[in-house]
Amino acid sequence: MTYKLKCTTSYDGSRFHGFQKQVKQRTVQQEIEKALALIHKHVIIIHASGRTDTNVHALGQVFHFETDLNIAPANWKKALNSILPDDIYIKEAEDVDLSFHSRFDALIKEYHYFLSIDEYNPLKSQYIYYHRFDLDIERMKQAIKYFVGEHDFTSFTSNKTKKNKVRTIYEAAIINKGKELEFLFRGSGFLRYQIRIMVGTLIEIGQGKRDVSSINDIFEQKDRKKAGPTAKPQGLYLYKVEY
Amino acid sequence: MTYKLKCTTSYDGSRFHGFQKQVKQRTVQQEIEKALALIHKHVIIIHASGRTDTNVHALGQVFHFETDLNIAPANWKKALNSILPDDIYIKEAEDVDLSFHSRFDALIKEYHYFLSIDEYNPLKSQYIYYHRFDLDIERMKQAIKYFVGEHDFTSFTSNKTKKNKVRTIYEAAIINKGKELEFLFRGSGFLRYQIRIMVGTLIEIGQGKRDVSSINDIFEQKDRKKAGPTAKPQGLYLYKVEY
Repeated sequence: MTYKLKCTTSYDGSRFHGFQKQVKQRTVQQEIEKALALIHKHVIIIHASGRTDTNVHALGQVFHFETDLNIAPANWKKALNSILPDDIYIKEAEDVDLSFHSRFDALIKEYHYFLSIDEYNPLKSQYIYYHRFDLDIERMKQAIKYFVGEHDFTSFTSNKTKKNKVRTIYEAAIINKGKELEFLFRGSGFLRYQIRIMVGTLIEIGQGKRDVSSINDIFEQKDRKKAGPTAKPQGLYLYKVEY
Repeated sequence: MTYKLKCTTSYDGSRFHGFQKQVKQRTVQQEIEKALALIHKHVIIIHASGRTDTNVHALGQVFHFETDLNIAPANWKKALNSILPDDIYIKEAEDVDLSFHSRFDALIKEYHYFLSIDEYNPLKSQYIYYHRFDLDIERMKQAIKYFVGEHDFTSFTSNKTKKNKVRTIYEAAIINKGKELEFLFRGSGFLRYQIRIMVGTLIEIGQGKRDVSSINDIFEQKDRKKAGPTAKPQGLYLYKVEY
């Protein structure tokens, strides 16, 4: 009999070359598939809700795999965590219908990005982006609202992306606690580098280099060069995927 | 002319084989001396308040060095931070009298140790010790008081240590916030592994494996084997050194 398991996982991206399998690079997918191969004595392929790039973290990445082993979900969690390295953790394993697909069935993805204008702390250097200059947070809070809704995000993704670039953002907000800023984005899905380019553009607005309303112009121009730089990966977290 | 600089530094211990220089291992001292050699065009030796072991962090380690360069302290800070790797940071540089010594003049050292009984988070695995079982925190809070005062800590250090093992602890406390425990120790100085063995012993008391008052017996027996195990290094932080 075939079973399908849905797993929610957290990982520290700092020692990985991203999620997706690559030749001769340490990746999250490869480590999880190695653990599953050890349990099954044969290759098992996992399918995630999407990739994350090098140094990007996850608190709620989701993947699924099929198996012919009849193991209770709680025991899958225990077995995998006992094998996985210390920078990957299975938070939950669930039995799901064979029709479930972690990527195609994802309804909402939520990402957070952390930025600090506080004095540098080397213990957080892999977990937050340190920005060296002051930012006008009120301007950034006004500007981030322009991202909400259905838009063509051509200007906010890698030039290499060929597929349809229309996406919907349901919620975009900045929460500030002292000298730390937390950006929150909830949407139907995100293109490669999209969040980091949106954050990079918001930083330039906070520095006064761009108008608050400039985001509308950038949308219209459909040109990656019109948006701001790609913010560093270590501030970015895949928070959760909803189905 | 000779100047003496006192520097306060923070570092993420997770990618270092401790503070002290070693052949073919990456250490904090070696990285700082490399940066100083680049500025001076010749070797400069630094002297720290003490060593920290592999994977132990610092938020307020202190070291000094002598130089014939007449550079303002604020510029020493900038110059060193521009060269140092992202896991070491100079928080403060100060001109001090040539008689100052970071080790011999230290009056109080303060260490904190972080332990969690919460669900494992791979993003914190290098920064906190995850204990898998519940602990009786009230018992541990009573027990930690036995460490305060002047004691012979022979049972609480490496067997290899030959020097005088009498030390004074001025303050020892446990602060608990939800499922996280923070141990605080302030003392005249600490022997090798002393804090980690004290924490390992307190964990056994929290598990009910030892009596609250057993610490007095362990002191009397002057035997490393009578104390608990050495707690993992990643929970330990050198918080500050007072002069």
